[in-house]
Amino acid sequence: MTDHRRITPVILSGGSGTRLWPVSRTGRPKQLLSLTHAETMLQLTLGRTAGTERFAAPIIVANTAHADEIEAQVSAIGVGSHLLILEPAARNTAPAIALAAYAAEPEAILLVMPSDHVIADAPAFHAAIDRATGVVEAGWLSTFGIAAVAPEIGYGYIRRGEEIAPGVQRVEQFVEKPDIVTAQTYLDEGCYSWNGGIFLFTAASYIAALEAVAPAMASAAKEAMDKAVRTGSRILPDTMAFGRSPSDSIDYAVMEKAERVAVVPVEMGWSDVGSWDALYELAIKDNHGNSHHGEVLAIDTARCLIRSEGPLVTAIGVSDLIVIATHDAVLIMPRNESQNVKRIVDSLKRDHHVTLDRHVGSSS
Amino acid sequence: MTDHRRITPVILSGGSGTRLWPVSRTGRPKQLLSLTHAETMLQLTLGRTAGTERFAAPIIVANTAHADEIEAQVSAIGVGSHLLILEPAARNTAPAIALAAYAAEPEAILLVMPSDHVIADAPAFHAAIDRATGVVEAGWLSTFGIAAVAPEIGYGYIRRGEEIAPGVQRVEQFVEKPDIVTAQTYLDEGCYSWNGGIFLFTAASYIAALEAVAPAMASAAKEAMDKAVRTGSRILPDTMAFGRSPSDSIDYAVMEKAERVAVVPVEMGWSDVGSWDALYELAIKDNHGNSHHGEVLAIDTARCLIRSEGPLVTAIGVSDLIVIATHDAVLIMPRNESQNVKRIVDSLKRDHHVTLDRHVGSSS
Repeated sequence: MTDHRRITPVILSGGSGTRLWPVSRTGRPKQLLSLTHAETMLQLTLGRTAGTERFAAPIIVANTAHADEIEAQVSAIGVGSHLLILEPAARNTAPAIALAAYAAEPEAILLVMPSDHVIADAPAFHAAIDRATGVVEAGWLSTFGIAAVAPEIGYGYIRRGEEIAPGVQRVEQFVEKPDIVTAQTYLDEGCYSWNGGIFLFTAASYIAALEAVAPAMASAAKEAMDKAVRTGSRILPDTMAFGRSPSDSIDYAVMEKAERVAVVPVEMGWSDVGSWDALYELAIKDNHGNSHHGEVLAIDTARCLIRSEGPLVTAIGVSDLIVIATHDAVLIMPRNESQNVKRIVDSLKRDHHVTLDRHVGSSS
Repeated sequence: MTDHRRITPVILSGGSGTRLWPVSRTGRPKQLLSLTHAETMLQLTLGRTAGTERFAAPIIVANTAHADEIEAQVSAIGVGSHLLILEPAARNTAPAIALAAYAAEPEAILLVMPSDHVIADAPAFHAAIDRATGVVEAGWLSTFGIAAVAPEIGYGYIRRGEEIAPGVQRVEQFVEKPDIVTAQTYLDEGCYSWNGGIFLFTAASYIAALEAVAPAMASAAKEAMDKAVRTGSRILPDTMAFGRSPSDSIDYAVMEKAERVAVVPVEMGWSDVGSWDALYELAIKDNHGNSHHGEVLAIDTARCLIRSEGPLVTAIGVSDLIVIATHDAVLIMPRNESQNVKRIVDSLKRDHHVTLDRHVGSSS
């Protein structure tokens, strides 16, 4: 390993997905939950780059509503110094990362990570970071290409091109979430990786790319940070300025348009834990394929995921079911159909069947 | 209809079954719940003999712990005068009925009914009562023989003998709950009815039979009533005296041993609502065979019974399931297996997995 600059983790905690409803809500998004371990997804993400000289203090970009909870979680795992940038409005990932880039020194290397993914093999992740660092220091924007192991239709794909450094390839093309037939051809061709939304670049490279391809976004983020108020570890970017930023993802706004974009293929036990089925796959199971969590009494069950955060959940004689219970809502569906949670949440929102704040959460 | 004496309903509310767990608990037994209608099972039972000159004020025999709730339910449906006999101890049905018999005039005709059964066709029930009244006035103990429509193994059966009055037959034999093969032969033979636990006799006939076949029970109940304390409509039999009574059911202690026992066959839409499956059978269903009750959102479900008394219950893509939710417990099982509730409840009690008072209820 060459003597590289320290890397600043930039952790994006802005999401408020409902794919893990009823446990995840707007006010209690996935990254703040304990799903795979006693630690929350955010804490696991922080832990992945903590305790080594290789990484500097992290920058967390988050929704203002979650500030107290985030600081409590950060402090609970003993991560001392950090910056918490509180987005005045939701503008998707490209502007959020811009805030972090303007907060950092220009030459800082930023490791941008979602706050709610699983990476089982941290050493493999660190090795991939090491592989990318050289080209990143040379000005490239790098992404990590997750080894595709199934014809997934829920992810974007990256077509890998020529090798530009050992274990680093030029991105030939970012492609949208495919249909199942296309996904299978990507898998068969062998030169596609999943886009896991993890990036490595210097602050200066990102800002330069943003200024080139999305100047309105760059100037809004810059002004918001120039006028930001800092209180302790919290940074509050200017609301008016940031509000003027267009809203877009880093993939669409920057990566697909920038010159010199690299991908580092990596196999690291990655999962976005994007559904209850995904959590079932990750979970430790008993001899009958059951994963139960919380106050659960299951008799003669097979291949079930049963989680309770509140009531006693009893099940007898059922198989291949997902049952998720909280103090105010219970979800029951077959395994391998957990994408349908979206239909439940949409229906609740549409029909105002229940108080959204209570059962789903409302967008802020 | 001949000019018969008025009939005193005797409603037995002592049960504390858990076959409808988690909704029914020791402290909130089935008869006090609204299961098939807005009215509770007790209220429906009272309503079956209310508002007609044919019936006198009812006598309710109940557990002391339920006294206030019972009086609230009685009053809510406008049943005015009644007697509430509060059992000092649980001694099964024969002594409980004896308390009511001693509270009544000897010549009173008592219509003894469980408080938690469904009788959909009240006119058919009333007609059966009319058919029985003659032999009852002549000193017979009469039971009602529910038309057997399936080889049920959960009920006792009555083998009907010679006709002793129009629509009234001598009981040839009471038989225990059969196995499925025996139940099928009973059904095929056509001379068996289900024993629904509904009886008609004069107070004097019952007491005479009890004195003949179970004298210790008769004397304990008599002494308990001689020393009873009456407060308003409540009668508190003497605890010491009643405590000395043997414990037994009217079937075993009296009906199987007494002379001159009659059965009135009747088809009246009877159900003991003895399981969640039984409730499903009784319920009004949508076009997909679903019966949902409470705050339930079901999408693409078929032939499901889903009831919530607390949390929002959402189900998508499941079929032939029973889901019962209360504020502190959720039960999930396939349809047609609801006898397994007993295994759940036994497991909870045995393993002290949870606080029994909270989740199951403890015997008093």
